[in-house]
Amino acid sequence: MHFDIITVLPDLLASPLSHSIMQRAKDKGLLTVEVHDLREFGLGKHRNVDDYQFGGGAGMVMRCEPLADMIDKLSKERTYDEIIYLTPDGERYTQGRANQLSLGENLLLICGHYKGIDQRLRDEYVTLEISIGDYVLSGGELAAAVLVDSIGRLLPGVLNDETSALTDSFQDNLLAPPVYTRPAEWRGRAVPPILLSGHTAAIEEWREEQAEQRTRDRRPDLFGEED
Amino acid sequence: MHFDIITVLPDLLASPLSHSIMQRAKDKGLLTVEVHDLREFGLGKHRNVDDYQFGGGAGMVMRCEPLADMIDKLSKERTYDEIIYLTPDGERYTQGRANQLSLGENLLLICGHYKGIDQRLRDEYVTLEISIGDYVLSGGELAAAVLVDSIGRLLPGVLNDETSALTDSFQDNLLAPPVYTRPAEWRGRAVPPILLSGHTAAIEEWREEQAEQRTRDRRPDLFGEED
Repeated sequence: MHFDIITVLPDLLASPLSHSIMQRAKDKGLLTVEVHDLREFGLGKHRNVDDYQFGGGAGMVMRCEPLADMIDKLSKERTYDEIIYLTPDGERYTQGRANQLSLGENLLLICGHYKGIDQRLRDEYVTLEISIGDYVLSGGELAAAVLVDSIGRLLPGVLNDETSALTDSFQDNLLAPPVYTRPAEWRGRAVPPILLSGHTAAIEEWREEQAEQRTRDRRPDLFGEED
Repeated sequence: MHFDIITVLPDLLASPLSHSIMQRAKDKGLLTVEVHDLREFGLGKHRNVDDYQFGGGAGMVMRCEPLADMIDKLSKERTYDEIIYLTPDGERYTQGRANQLSLGENLLLICGHYKGIDQRLRDEYVTLEISIGDYVLSGGELAAAVLVDSIGRLLPGVLNDETSALTDSFQDNLLAPPVYTRPAEWRGRAVPPILLSGHTAAIEEWREEQAEQRTRDRRPDLFGEED
C-alpha cells in the first residue's frame, strides 16, 4: 500500500513515519509513504502557498494553485482510491473506516494549515474528508500520521501476530477488556484469579463480560451498534 | 505549561514536538515538553518493560514496576493536574476537554504500547483516561502529540492572532464555515459574492448560516449541544 502526503511541514512527519510499526511495515515492503513539500509548487520567489481570506477575519487560507498543481502531478503517477483532506469538519474517523481504507492501494492525504484550504479545492478534488476527532490541531500532519499508523498496522504481515489487531478495541464494537501481566500480586493488588486458572473457555467468557461491561459503562453509544 | 510524556519510543515524538506551533510555543517559553524513556526503569539487563498477558492471548502488556517507578520519580518533582493514560477505551477527547486542560500547569501523559498497560497501574495512578478517537494506533505516542498540539495552541500568546483559535471548529459547537482566498475566480469556480462585498455584518451572518448548515448536514449530533 502507498500513501502520498502533501504538507507545508514535511519535517514534522519525519519521526512518526520512521519508527516502530511504520518502519517495520516499510522494511517489509508492505507500506510506502512519500511526503511531498507543497512549497515546491509555491507561488513567486517566496513560494507562497497561502493568502488572507476573502471577507476578512483571522487566519490564512491555503490557495488553490499550488495544491492543484501538486495533486495534478501526483494523479498522473497513480490512481488514488481516495483523495483525503484531513479537517475537523470532516467525517469522524473510525476503526471501520480504517479497515475499509486498508483494502485500498493508493491514498493521497492533504494536510491543511492555518484556517484550512480554499473551499474550491475541496469541491474539485477531495473525495473523502476525515476528522480524527472533535478538536482542532495546528495542522493536518498529526491527523495524517494517525491515518497511516491506524491503516498501516492492519495490512497483512505488519503486526507480528496477525490475531493481535482482531482483539483490539472497536473491532467488534466493544472496548477491550482489562489486561494484566506479571507479577500476580503488586502492591497488594492481585490479578483476577480467573486469569490464573488455565481454563481457556472460562477466561474467554470473563473477557467478553468485562468488555461488554466496560463498553456499557464508558461508551453506551457504541454498545449494540452494528458494523 | 509543562508536559511530561512517558514512552518506550521517545524518538518517535522528536519531530512533531520540534516544529511549527509547538516549537514556537517552546521558543517563547510558554510550553515545555520532556519526553522520558520508560526503558530507563526497565527490568534486568534487557530493560524489559512488558510481559505476556495473564490468561493467554496475543499481544504483550506493559508491566507495573517500570511505569510505577518512573511515575513515582516524576511525581516527586511536580504536582500534576492530571496523570493521563492515552487509550482507545478512555473518554473521547473533545475541544472542551482541551480547553479545560489548557488551564492547568503540569500534565503527565502515559503512552501505552502493545495491548496496553497493566490494569493495576490504571487503578493506582491514572486520573484521566483519554481516547483521541474510535480507532486503534500502534501506541499512545501520536495521541500524546495530539494532546500537546491541541492544548499547546490554546495557551495565550502561542498563536500569532489570539482570535484565531476562537473561530475554529468546535469552539461554539459548530463546524467552521467554508473559507476562500485569492484568486476570486479559479477554474471557473467563483468565490461567493457576499465575501467580496465588504459588508462585514452581512458576511458574519452568511458565515454563521454556513456554519450552522454544515453542522446540520455533517454533524447533526453536535448541533444544539450545550458546552
